[in-house]
Order: sequence, then structure tokens, then C-alpha cells
Amino acid sequence: MGASVPDHFEDMWRAIEPLGRAERSGGYFRQPFASAERELDAWFVEQATARGLRLEADAFGNRVAWWDSGSGPGVLTGSHLDSVLDGGAYDGPLGVVSALAAVELLRDRGFRPARPVGVSVFVEEEGSRFGLACLGSRLATGALTWDKARGLRDRDGVRLDEAMASAGLDDENPQPWLGSERLACFVELHVEQGRDLVDRGEAIGVASRIWPHGRYRFDISGEPNHAGTTRMEDRRDPMLTYAMTALAANKQARVAGQRATFGRVDATPNSTNSVPSSVTAWMDARCETDEALASMVDAVVRQAEDRAARDGTRLTVTAESVSGAVDFDPSLAQRIAADHETGDWPILPTQAGHDAGILSAQGILSAMLFVRNPSGISHSPAEHAEMPDCLAGVDALAETLQRLSS
Amino acid sequence: MGASVPDHFEDMWRAIEPLGRAERSGGYFRQPFASAERELDAWFVEQATARGLRLEADAFGNRVAWWDSGSGPGVLTGSHLDSVLDGGAYDGPLGVVSALAAVELLRDRGFRPARPVGVSVFVEEEGSRFGLACLGSRLATGALTWDKARGLRDRDGVRLDEAMASAGLDDENPQPWLGSERLACFVELHVEQGRDLVDRGEAIGVASRIWPHGRYRFDISGEPNHAGTTRMEDRRDPMLTYAMTALAANKQARVAGQRATFGRVDATPNSTNSVPSSVTAWMDARCETDEALASMVDAVVRQAEDRAARDGTRLTVTAESVSGAVDFDPSLAQRIAADHETGDWPILPTQAGHDAGILSAQGILSAMLFVRNPSGISHSPAEHAEMPDCLAGVDALAETLQRLSS
Repeated sequence: MGASVPDHFEDMWRAIEPLGRAERSGGYFRQPFASAERELDAWFVEQATARGLRLEADAFGNRVAWWDSGSGPGVLTGSHLDSVLDGGAYDGPLGVVSALAAVELLRDRGFRPARPVGVSVFVEEEGSRFGLACLGSRLATGALTWDKARGLRDRDGVRLDEAMASAGLDDENPQPWLGSERLACFVELHVEQGRDLVDRGEAIGVASRIWPHGRYRFDISGEPNHAGTTRMEDRRDPMLTYAMTALAANKQARVAGQRATFGRVDATPNSTNSVPSSVTAWMDARCETDEALASMVDAVVRQAEDRAARDGTRLTVTAESVSGAVDFDPSLAQRIAADHETGDWPILPTQAGHDAGILSAQGILSAMLFVRNPSGISHSPAEHAEMPDCLAGVDALAETLQRLSS
Repeated sequence: MGASVPDHFEDMWRAIEPLGRAERSGGYFRQPFASAERELDAWFVEQATARGLRLEADAFGNRVAWWDSGSGPGVLTGSHLDSVLDGGAYDGPLGVVSALAAVELLRDRGFRPARPVGVSVFVEEEGSRFGLACLGSRLATGALTWDKARGLRDRDGVRLDEAMASAGLDDENPQPWLGSERLACFVELHVEQGRDLVDRGEAIGVASRIWPHGRYRFDISGEPNHAGTTRMEDRRDPMLTYAMTALAANKQARVAGQRATFGRVDATPNSTNSVPSSVTAWMDARCETDEALASMVDAVVRQAEDRAARDGTRLTVTAESVSGAVDFDPSLAQRIAADHETGDWPILPTQAGHDAGILSAQGILSAMLFVRNPSGISHSPAEHAEMPDCLAGVDALAETLQRLSS
């Protein structure tokens, strides 16, 4: 290829920019196994093929494009192409596009890795369709069994196995395949979802750890009734229990310096002139330690239960997923961060879950690179990274892959 | 017809029972201009035709089946066939089925009215699709102009004129037609939506007045962001503003002995791991007096604005519809309620809006009959009336029509 790697990076970026973008908000809707995400998947296959990489597809919809070289367990890099609802352009795709560009850069430089280097795309990283984040990497590594996963349903009631079959994935008995015997290590590049690098004036950082986090479903049922004729004191209104719980979660997180969010709520029948029969809402909670997470969730649930008793409603709380703290291997992080021309890259924690966290928890040596995000905003149409920082990310990833595969 | 009126009533009731009923909850989904409600409309045409009543259809989807007799302005009775989402079987249909049965009863008795008697069905009484209650009667009486109504949209973005066209209603310039020059009076029979008759041990009551009530849309916008990585103090979370507002509305209504309900809420993008970009919610508010309603709504909006300022969110409140107090003509109510074998029927207020309230406010002499509801529950699958009370309602309506059309 005649053009430079930066040109190729920008070409790739422009090619995927329109896919799944909503005109109204400018945000992305790239749901797994649905049209926009399938277009991205086809785009990835095309890019890998054009570069002469060997494609490997698993039964869950994950892909790896291999640069076959040397021998032994491979070095994997990559991220995901799905988005949250109305999400940003960078969360996920930046890691995939940068991985393809970094491989290209290393080849341009005439580097020959001592072991295979793979570019991976994991499906349903956000959990925005089936409710369980990092679904693809959980299934590939065996962190989640197919028996438990296949029955997961999306908001329209479509089961995971049905959605996968509609995308041509209909293996009756798919098996995990991704482990330390196949991989020497995994390194995921990701846009930073915070302002730590901005505050430090650095373009690139390395992850130290991922906060423990979980998703908790609050099912609150009451008594449906007429909004006009039912006296206030005769009601069993689940909306009140929900409202107090959302405020309690916010307060607990504030006081403890942690994070708790109710971003999703579904009322039934969701009718203006009816007291709802039920309200279901999801709490996203993240804390510095496993103990702090358990204690914050307990405190919120206790307050919700007290309020439910006052409202005459019934509350059930289900932990849909809980991921313990992930400490990335400190010596690997150190090896990646140290001894650069511009000095060491900073090593910093994140509150966001990632496929790298799943692989790490499954015993695969893993690391993450972060690219500066000027506003810190993520999971939003306003999510951004400047092009020079993105290109610095490609350089950093290439250098990291070179160190790890030499 | 050989069978008795009670048999015919029960036959009609059984015929419509399955239409639009959800298997899961047992509740009804009879949205205007959609399949189940259109089946009910066809059923009404069939019933009216079988009884030799003359059908009149207006350009808005409202219908009247006339028993032509005598001369001069007619006496109208009837109700509606649409339901709230997941509503009960009685709210609306009881008034229509009872009206058909009452006409039959009067004919069986050989009564000849001195003026025409009509059985009416008004569309979209609940406002569950286009957000404005009593839409059909508002349009028919001119309380709402077609220019203001035609652009109303349902949750899927379908415009009212489009939905009507899909039901074969495509008059370019439909005009109001229902006024006191055509009608001597209107009487609507309805299941009670409260326990007043139960407490009094009476099967039948007459309406004195309808509380003033309104629907207010709260649009709260914030800043979408990552639920994990965004510090609590950096957020502009519209869910918090909403939650506090829902609790404030409940408290204001409790303290004042009035009614306020948030039964409908839509978060955007409604994603577990995102701080929402916006939350839209609807408040249903009802008070004994117009002044109390204005003052309660003011108090809630003020608290919501204070909270929005603290949360860094933006709030816009839109009154989608506000209906002032309706005092039904006291001498008409008295004339209907007095001098029965079993004594006078009680005269009582209601907090629910009805087409009779719209007609009354438009200068048409109007009245309402209520049929006892053992639990008081309405807008719920549990809404109920006992068959003997329903048949007492038919008798009461027949007697009322006889008094008013003699």
C-alpha cells in the first residue's frame, strides 16, 4: 500500500463513521447481531482480507484476524464494534481500527514477530441488547456457559440463540476456545472514559485495574389502578418505590465516593392515567473494592425494601451480573509503560468493564492502553478523541505489540 | 327476539370479552384505530344493524345508532369502546352494551319515545394513544379543532390523521357537528371508579360533578455519559430530577387530599450503563377545585425546577390538556335520581374525566349514571362489576331514557 498508516487509519475511520449513526442525536446504535453491527462485522472481514490476515470466526460471533508469524501462543489485540444505545464513535471501534493500523505499521517497518499477532473483535461487549456486558468474551473464554447464555432475551423478547441464528450462527453446542494455552497475552486499546489523562497532560496511559461492578435489576410490583379516582392512601404505587430507590442509590454513591446509576426504567403499562402495575429498573454500581460494592448495594436494597414496605409494593432484586475487581498484571503493565522516548506512560485505574477484564479474570495475561478523551465523556454522542491522540495510540499499540511479540 | 334482555346483555358481553385481551395479564389493549378497537367498532355496527337502528358515522370515527322516533332534538346515551393500556373490561364498554340493552328493554315494553334516542360510541376517550383524553367528543363538539388535533402523534410517531386514514377516515376538512341544537341531553352510564357506592350499599348512583384535571409533560434533559467512569459530582442526571419530582407530586397530593400520579416515564437512551440524556414523564393531576389544581401543579413544578437547578438539568413543563371542573346540571341529576321504588339514587362526584364532561362543558345538558364496582379498582385488569349490578344499570338507564324522552 502506497499511502501512510495515518492515511489508512483515517480512511478506515471515515468508512465506519456513518454505520448505525442516528441523524437526530449523532449517536450510535450498533446492537449485536442487528444490521449496523453486522455491517461493521462485514467491514472487518473485508479489511482483514485486504491485508492478507487469516480470519478465524468462533461459534459466538467473535472474530480474530491473524498475522501468522513465528510460533507458539499468540499476542492478541482488539476490542469491540457494538455500542451502547445512542453511544459514541470511539468506545470499541477505536481499539479495532488502531489494531489493524498497528499491524500495518509493524509490517511497513519490516518487523517480523516471533509469535502470531491477532486482531480480535468481541461481540456484545456493552450488554446493550442482552443485558450482560462482555458476552462474547465471557462465552469464548468459558467464563459463561452457553446453557446459561442461550436463553437471554432482548427487549423485544428475542432469545440470544435466535438472534445468533439470524446472523448465521447456529452451532448447537458451541464450546469455549480462548485460553492461556492459545494466547501469550491480550492487550486492548480503548478511548479513556474519564479525564485522568487530560489532567495529567498525557496522550497515552496503561490500565492498572478495573473497579468491581455489577448490574442489578429491581422488579417492583404494585396494584394497577385509576390515576384519578384512587385515593392516594389506597394506592400501592411502584413508581414511588422506584423514585426513592433511584435517589437513594445516588446518595449512597455520592457519600461513599463510588458510582451508582439508574439509567434504565420500564413502567407497565406506562400509561398517564394509570397507577403502574409494575416498574422494573436497572442499577449500575461500581466501587473501588469488592467490599465497598457489596456494602453500597446492600444499603440501596435496604432503603428500597423499607420504602416498598411503606408503599405496599413488592420488591425483588436480581444481580444480573457482578464482576469482581480485576488487577491487571503489574509487571506486564510496567513492561508496556516504561522506557519510552517521551518518558513512562502513566498507569491508572478505570471504572469501566472491558473484555480485557474478562480475559484477565480467566487467567490470560492482559493489559490495556488508554487514549486521551478531552472531555472525559463516554457512552454519549459527545464522546471524542483528537486525531493526533488516536495516531499516538496506533504508535503506542504498535510499540507494545512489538515488545510483546519479539 | 325471543330471549330476555338479561340474556342479550350477557351475550353481548361474552362476544366482546376476548377482543384485545392480553393473555398474560387478562387486561385489555384497545387502542383507537388499531385492530382490537376496530373489531369492537365493527361489532357495534353489526349490533345496531341487527336491531334496526339507523347508523350515523362522523368524520372522526365517532358513531351514533339512532332509534328514530318522535321529533325534535334527540336523547343520546353511550360511552366508548377503547381502553387504557392493560385496562379493564368495563370502563367504556359497559356504557355501550347497557345502552343497546336499555333501548331493547324499552322497545320490549312497547315504549314509544317522543324524541329520537341515540346510542353513541366516542373514539379515543382514554387518550392512551394520542395523549389527549376524550379526543372523539372534543372533536365532535368543536371543543378541539381539527387543525390542532391532526398533528398529534402516538408513541410510534404515527400522526392522528394518518391513523384515521388507515381506518378509512380521510375527510380533508372534518367539521364539528354535535351541539345542543341536535341533542336535548346526553346521559352516560359508567362503571364507578371508586368505592363510594360500595360504602353506601347502593348499586346505582348519579354524577354531581367531575373534578378538574390535567396531564402535564415534564421534559428533563441532562448530559449523557458513562455510568461507571463519570464521577457523581460531574453528572447532569435527569433521572434524579425526575425521581424527586415523582415523590414531590405524591407528597403534594397527599398533603392536599388531592391526586397526582406519574404513571408514564420514558428515559433516553434507557441504557443500564449510561447516565440518561433525557427523561420525559407525564403527571396526571386532579383536584376538587380549579384553584387547588393550579396551586398543586405550581408547587410540583417549583420543586422540580429547584431540583433541576441542583442537578444541572433543564426542565420544560407542558400542559398537554387541562379540563376545568364540570358541574353537571343539578336539576337534571335530581330528576334522574329521584322517585324510584327503592328510594332515591345517591348523587356523587367523580375524579375521572368522561365524554359527558366534554359535552356538558360545550353546553349540552348532560348526566352520568354509575354502576357499583366492588373493589373500586379501575384502569386495571381487576376492574369489575357484578352481573346483577350491570343488569340493574340497564334497568336504571332504561328508566332514565324513558323519563328524558317522554
